[in-house]
Amino acid sequence: MKNIWTLPLYCADYTLFVVRKDVSGWDTRGENPDPVKAKCPPVLVDDVYLNGPTLDVNGAEDFIRESMRIITEDAVKKATDVREKVCEWHSPEDLKELLDLQLTDEGESDTRILERCRDAIRYSVKTTHPRFFNQLYAGMEPYSMVASFIIEALKPSLYTYEVSPVFTLVEDAVLRKMREVIGWKEGGDGIFNAGGSLSNMYAVNLARYHHCPDVKELGLSAVPRLVLFTSQECHYSISKAAAFLGIGTKNVYVVPSDNRYIFTEWLNVRVCDQGAVPFMVNATAGTTVLGAFDPIEEIADICEKHNLWLHVDACWGGAALMSAKHKHLLKGVHRANSVAWNPHKMLMACLQCCAFLVRDKTGLLQRCYSARASYLFQQDKFYDVSYDTGDKSVQCSRKPDAFKFWLMWKALGSKELEQRVDRAFAMAKYLAQEVKKREGFRLLMEPEYANVCFWYIPPSLRDLPDSTELWEKIHKVAPVVKERMMKKGSMMVGYQPHGDKANFFRMIIISPQVSRQDMDFVLDEIDRLGRDL
Amino acid sequence: MKNIWTLPLYCADYTLFVVRKDVSGWDTRGENPDPVKAKCPPVLVDDVYLNGPTLDVNGAEDFIRESMRIITEDAVKKATDVREKVCEWHSPEDLKELLDLQLTDEGESDTRILERCRDAIRYSVKTTHPRFFNQLYAGMEPYSMVASFIIEALKPSLYTYEVSPVFTLVEDAVLRKMREVIGWKEGGDGIFNAGGSLSNMYAVNLARYHHCPDVKELGLSAVPRLVLFTSQECHYSISKAAAFLGIGTKNVYVVPSDNRYIFTEWLNVRVCDQGAVPFMVNATAGTTVLGAFDPIEEIADICEKHNLWLHVDACWGGAALMSAKHKHLLKGVHRANSVAWNPHKMLMACLQCCAFLVRDKTGLLQRCYSARASYLFQQDKFYDVSYDTGDKSVQCSRKPDAFKFWLMWKALGSKELEQRVDRAFAMAKYLAQEVKKREGFRLLMEPEYANVCFWYIPPSLRDLPDSTELWEKIHKVAPVVKERMMKKGSMMVGYQPHGDKANFFRMIIISPQVSRQDMDFVLDEIDRLGRDL
Repeated sequence: MKNIWTLPLYCADYTLFVVRKDVSGWDTRGENPDPVKAKCPPVLVDDVYLNGPTLDVNGAEDFIRESMRIITEDAVKKATDVREKVCEWHSPEDLKELLDLQLTDEGESDTRILERCRDAIRYSVKTTHPRFFNQLYAGMEPYSMVASFIIEALKPSLYTYEVSPVFTLVEDAVLRKMREVIGWKEGGDGIFNAGGSLSNMYAVNLARYHHCPDVKELGLSAVPRLVLFTSQECHYSISKAAAFLGIGTKNVYVVPSDNRYIFTEWLNVRVCDQGAVPFMVNATAGTTVLGAFDPIEEIADICEKHNLWLHVDACWGGAALMSAKHKHLLKGVHRANSVAWNPHKMLMACLQCCAFLVRDKTGLLQRCYSARASYLFQQDKFYDVSYDTGDKSVQCSRKPDAFKFWLMWKALGSKELEQRVDRAFAMAKYLAQEVKKREGFRLLMEPEYANVCFWYIPPSLRDLPDSTELWEKIHKVAPVVKERMMKKGSMMVGYQPHGDKANFFRMIIISPQVSRQDMDFVLDEIDRLGRDL
Repeated sequence: MKNIWTLPLYCADYTLFVVRKDVSGWDTRGENPDPVKAKCPPVLVDDVYLNGPTLDVNGAEDFIRESMRIITEDAVKKATDVREKVCEWHSPEDLKELLDLQLTDEGESDTRILERCRDAIRYSVKTTHPRFFNQLYAGMEPYSMVASFIIEALKPSLYTYEVSPVFTLVEDAVLRKMREVIGWKEGGDGIFNAGGSLSNMYAVNLARYHHCPDVKELGLSAVPRLVLFTSQECHYSISKAAAFLGIGTKNVYVVPSDNRYIFTEWLNVRVCDQGAVPFMVNATAGTTVLGAFDPIEEIADICEKHNLWLHVDACWGGAALMSAKHKHLLKGVHRANSVAWNPHKMLMACLQCCAFLVRDKTGLLQRCYSARASYLFQQDKFYDVSYDTGDKSVQCSRKPDAFKFWLMWKALGSKELEQRVDRAFAMAKYLAQEVKKREGFRLLMEPEYANVCFWYIPPSLRDLPDSTELWEKIHKVAPVVKERMMKKGSMMVGYQPHGDKANFFRMIIISPQVSRQDMDFVLDEIDRLGRDL
């Protein structure tokens, strides 16, 4: 766009700055280029002319329109087309040259910038492509995407009702509904924030504050050593939380999976003997790698008996709550004190969309987090300041992520969200069945959720005896297959080792863009890419 | 858009699922509705048909195109038009009814959803409007806005190079350039994250880890009481950081402003006597309310002498570094160990865009934050895994905010960024001069930066003697003027009390969309709205 900087900066020609009526009825500037009407003599302060705006908003609109055309064509249509590549792979060194990243004194033309937009899209991984199965999110959700465009255009921030009236109310409505789905029927609290890891940190901090409110002022040096429990399969953010919050990673007591009664044993014997004070248990609903669910009901019994805060990390598995058929996986979740649940995963809200939900109705969240900044949270405002929710957050400016979930929920209704979840479960079951049927594939475990974990064993290894040596060889297969699929661009499926298990593939099934044909394709393609290994 | 769910779900008609070539050359589905070519017998798992996708992406494109038209018209064009209102005020109760927020089982038509988009825009505050002066961000930056649309369409997350090749390199390039601007010429580190408050928390945690790496594993209960210093005028996130990180708000030692030598005194006498261990000093470059700058050079001397980590919170004031004329305000910033700087404030990158920059070159950030999740940060990948930067973050999924700054920097060049900063300074100076000239206005202090703080004194109070009673009356003026401007929708200017100062207005000047006419308008409008008080 044409920037009108140069003119007012270097000359005193102020005929540019003209009169128009604004909402106040006061003449300021406008479309009529008559210098007599302008009545604005040039004002120069510190060598800068201050008459008239220096950004040509009309020019900007043309640029935005053209870029939207490119985005629709390249980042929506092509990116979701199964006939296109999931990614066009380049090494970091090559890609640096292709992108020309350097920032310089002089700017570039709009034409050049639009080319840069095209390039950024072209060389990016298409996470909305039907063959992207690499993370716990995938696929294209048009309603949520539009909601996120609206947010980007309006630039709202959720400090106060005054600055974000619509989005404050939307967040409240979504949190209410999510609490209802969890089974907390009468109130509660919550907040959307920037990621499930942060939600888990909120939980640890809130549980700590609930256990001992003095920590907020006095810090951990004033109290006995606090410890928390979690299962071995929990997300790594629990460990990051312990480090960040000053608790220490060694004070996260990891309970081996499939041995949950160890909670009680440790609580009664090991912990108390060492002078440590347990304050919370983290249960995981839908683990990252295996998609497993901790038995919430049993853990809730233990927590009640020992007066411990129960947090359920349902960032990934929370979606099952939308399904009458599958919500039993989270049986007992209504007994939790807090729940983390990311609609940006299986429910496909645009990144990021992460709710932290709290059962407490006494304002614990507010008391735990508030700092009462007087420049934001004035108490002499002309509306009900209980709508100013910003002081519940560790962030100051905060994006209205709930809107991305709200708009799609409005469009689809709970029923279609449920159908999508049911379909993802069914698709995972189908894939697991296929894995079991096929030669050279071996299922790690029956899927509980939408994670399907399996090994691919190339022909050359199929007749070897089951031994450490065999597994060392299998361990090297997945990285090579992954490299080949990336360079070909045909799909993206994650792999990892896990505990004592050699590298295996982890397929994540989410999007209604995929079908059984895609599941078949994935297995065929792995075989095509790895059969010579 | 038409959703093709219902058909495959309730009948076995699979003629819908047809053949097309994908990148692998394998026939899966396509545009040719010939059931013979499809070769996909219906597959039913758990009562769900799994043939073919259930989302009609072509229909979605039409919906997205139409919504983009609305966004351009309402959220860009109208929202930035000075003749339109900054906001259309409704009380929370009224707005709830207007928006119909409830989420139900059934979905809604696309037409209805587009109306909802229009409503969400209509009732939102227009932070990109030229008369929005309420926060430390404002205005419309078209290049950054387009970058943010691209991000929303592609849904990238910055765990690894493999998943976000373009945005990983872009973040690296922007951090490099920002470090160069700070004056760290040979390397360093950094990360973009969700807000300046989080950047400050990163700093406190990193300083603590640097002081005592054992805290990561053992927690604060294993070390002496740690304390940090900050000036009275610092942002409230320092206090939030101390609470969240387990340090305790009382262990934030607040140094009164204009009395910086107290640092030394306290360090030598008060602290050590009480067995507390100081580990960092937070200096603020551009305070939130007054826009004041702590003397970094002097504080750096103290930090060096006492071996303390120096963090500079330049979230707001960092933009001055872009200006040859004004960067002296941050003199000595290159001596800091870490700097928080939000390009989403004066530099107008879209929300959020927040850099946390570190001088260390030894990988301290990585060591402090890493948790080495094996499902993301595999070491047997086929590319240089030092590009996988996700383990430096407390977040897991993380948005590529640097791209929003990079694209606009490419378009404008450093020179135009500098001109914008210089113009904001000049505009603030102009406004301060006008405040001093006008009857009924009183300047709180000469602006150092782009914050102009002043009282409005209505005619009825102008002849009263300077007394507690007068200031109590003045204290009540700003809230009423604010209510009136909100209800009229003519502009948004913040107010607050501050220390012992009665409520005053705080004007924040940022955007190249504004001119001296807007400054004049603000003062005239306050007078119009408040002269009867």
